[in-house]
Amino acid sequence: MGARLARQLLERGTLADAQGKQASISKITLLDVVPAQGFSDPRIEVVTADIADAAIIEKVLTPQTGSVFHLAAIVSGQAEAEFELGMRINFDATRLILERARRNGNKPRVVFTSSVAVFGGDLPTQVPDTQVLTPQSSYGAQKVMGELLVNDYSRKGFIDGRALRMPTVCVRPGAPNKAASSFASGIIREPLNGVEAVCPVSADTPMWLLSPRYAINSLIHGHDIEGSAFGSSRAVSLPGLATTVREMVAALERVAGADVVKRIRWEQDPAIIRIVNSWPGNFITKRGDAMGFQRDADFDSIIRSYIDDELGNKVAG
Amino acid sequence: MGARLARQLLERGTLADAQGKQASISKITLLDVVPAQGFSDPRIEVVTADIADAAIIEKVLTPQTGSVFHLAAIVSGQAEAEFELGMRINFDATRLILERARRNGNKPRVVFTSSVAVFGGDLPTQVPDTQVLTPQSSYGAQKVMGELLVNDYSRKGFIDGRALRMPTVCVRPGAPNKAASSFASGIIREPLNGVEAVCPVSADTPMWLLSPRYAINSLIHGHDIEGSAFGSSRAVSLPGLATTVREMVAALERVAGADVVKRIRWEQDPAIIRIVNSWPGNFITKRGDAMGFQRDADFDSIIRSYIDDELGNKVAG
Repeated sequence: MGARLARQLLERGTLADAQGKQASISKITLLDVVPAQGFSDPRIEVVTADIADAAIIEKVLTPQTGSVFHLAAIVSGQAEAEFELGMRINFDATRLILERARRNGNKPRVVFTSSVAVFGGDLPTQVPDTQVLTPQSSYGAQKVMGELLVNDYSRKGFIDGRALRMPTVCVRPGAPNKAASSFASGIIREPLNGVEAVCPVSADTPMWLLSPRYAINSLIHGHDIEGSAFGSSRAVSLPGLATTVREMVAALERVAGADVVKRIRWEQDPAIIRIVNSWPGNFITKRGDAMGFQRDADFDSIIRSYIDDELGNKVAG
Repeated sequence: MGARLARQLLERGTLADAQGKQASISKITLLDVVPAQGFSDPRIEVVTADIADAAIIEKVLTPQTGSVFHLAAIVSGQAEAEFELGMRINFDATRLILERARRNGNKPRVVFTSSVAVFGGDLPTQVPDTQVLTPQSSYGAQKVMGELLVNDYSRKGFIDGRALRMPTVCVRPGAPNKAASSFASGIIREPLNGVEAVCPVSADTPMWLLSPRYAINSLIHGHDIEGSAFGSSRAVSLPGLATTVREMVAALERVAGADVVKRIRWEQDPAIIRIVNSWPGNFITKRGDAMGFQRDADFDSIIRSYIDDELGNKVAG
């Protein structure tokens, strides 16, 4: 996601500055534990390091940094299994970034990616913007804590923050990861690439999705809109597409055929089911809609945009 | 509050143990930056130290500690003025306590006092248990973060935590403090002691109150009930008395006479008004009621219990 965002920013060439005016991007620093690949643009600096290392944050986040997109995270499944690692990367690193931004004194725009995992417990079928956050995973709890910091730092005027609750991004390119939601991309991506995929949840599982295209656009939109549009909280649930695993698979069959769908093996995993079922599958995103965030029209078009963007329009037969 | 809780625990002699059975209290360690006064009971150990000092927490919180009541806080007004201090005491110290409890491995019951300040922003007249938390003060944000840790540590089985959102405790004995809500006790306590008090908010200001008697009882009740009673979140809004500053003053006049009320000087303070007005003045506490938490019947009885407990039943003429 970070590399894709960077490519789109390079192409776009501008972002809103502190006054909300589009200003040209002179430099983008990509910080990750694995080196970003395939960038030749002179505006790109690649830093391969631990985001929870204060000295690194000190170095890459300077008073000249006008914008921060903080996407780094230990994903839900891993944060649940490795509690201390999750706290360190999902919470402590976020705090380091915000503290450094505060001390820089230039009030940068900071986009923090939060998640539907902030919700959990007893939820209505459609989750409203006013719903209490009772996360049922360490990842979700750490994300809420990040939201609270982003909000308080913004309220105090230390930064100009925005915490965007991303729907599950699907179809993610690349390899499966330890996110409990990894299967949502896997059951589409792997079959399209001629590979078998396991679906660890039931077909009835409700899903709240956003394609990488719309996710990237939402990050940039969330960066560029005025902070005042957020009202009394800098955290917002992004609009997404409400669907189910069954509808996703039906769309895959419509787009790519029955043989491709046969590559999905159904094998329930209680640990994944517990986490995924604690997330809401549908929202009423009045605030996000009013703020101009956009969502995908349907899952067929999400699959088609994956085939278009990542497979050069070719599906494995 | 800590000293009063300790006295009540000494008198009571027992608390629920890990299995929920009442067990006798062999030792109570009172940790505060100012030394607790007036204890001669051999079960009391007084430690005067910084609660955010890891070495101190290491020392006082041992694998033999079955229960922790964590009341220490930088109050709302001060946490707003001194951001770093608020983060250190309200958040970092809470995390230190929970981490130490986790490493001790004996799953102690930890009662964390949260606050109505966790709420803010656009609120309904009566705040339900499902209301999203959008605090409008650093104190409120730090309390929500503490709640989230208590909840996640409990969900993971590291501790058996309970985060109780206290109404404004009134009438607090002692001196005014830097809490934005300090006036709520001051406008009753000072006039009853023959001293002038300033009321910095308008008479219409809604208040959500609990007397020290009921507050202490709620802390002990919150400790003793089964963790499963909390359902999907260990944080709960405690039942309180919904009133207004005007009704509080009218009760003072009924209980102590018109001359006492004349000792209140009305002088608005915008900084206090901003914080206090961001808090809700009324709640629907279905969960807290169902869990057996009790509230005061009316403000007249709150004043009378203050006169009884703290003034030896005598009011300054």
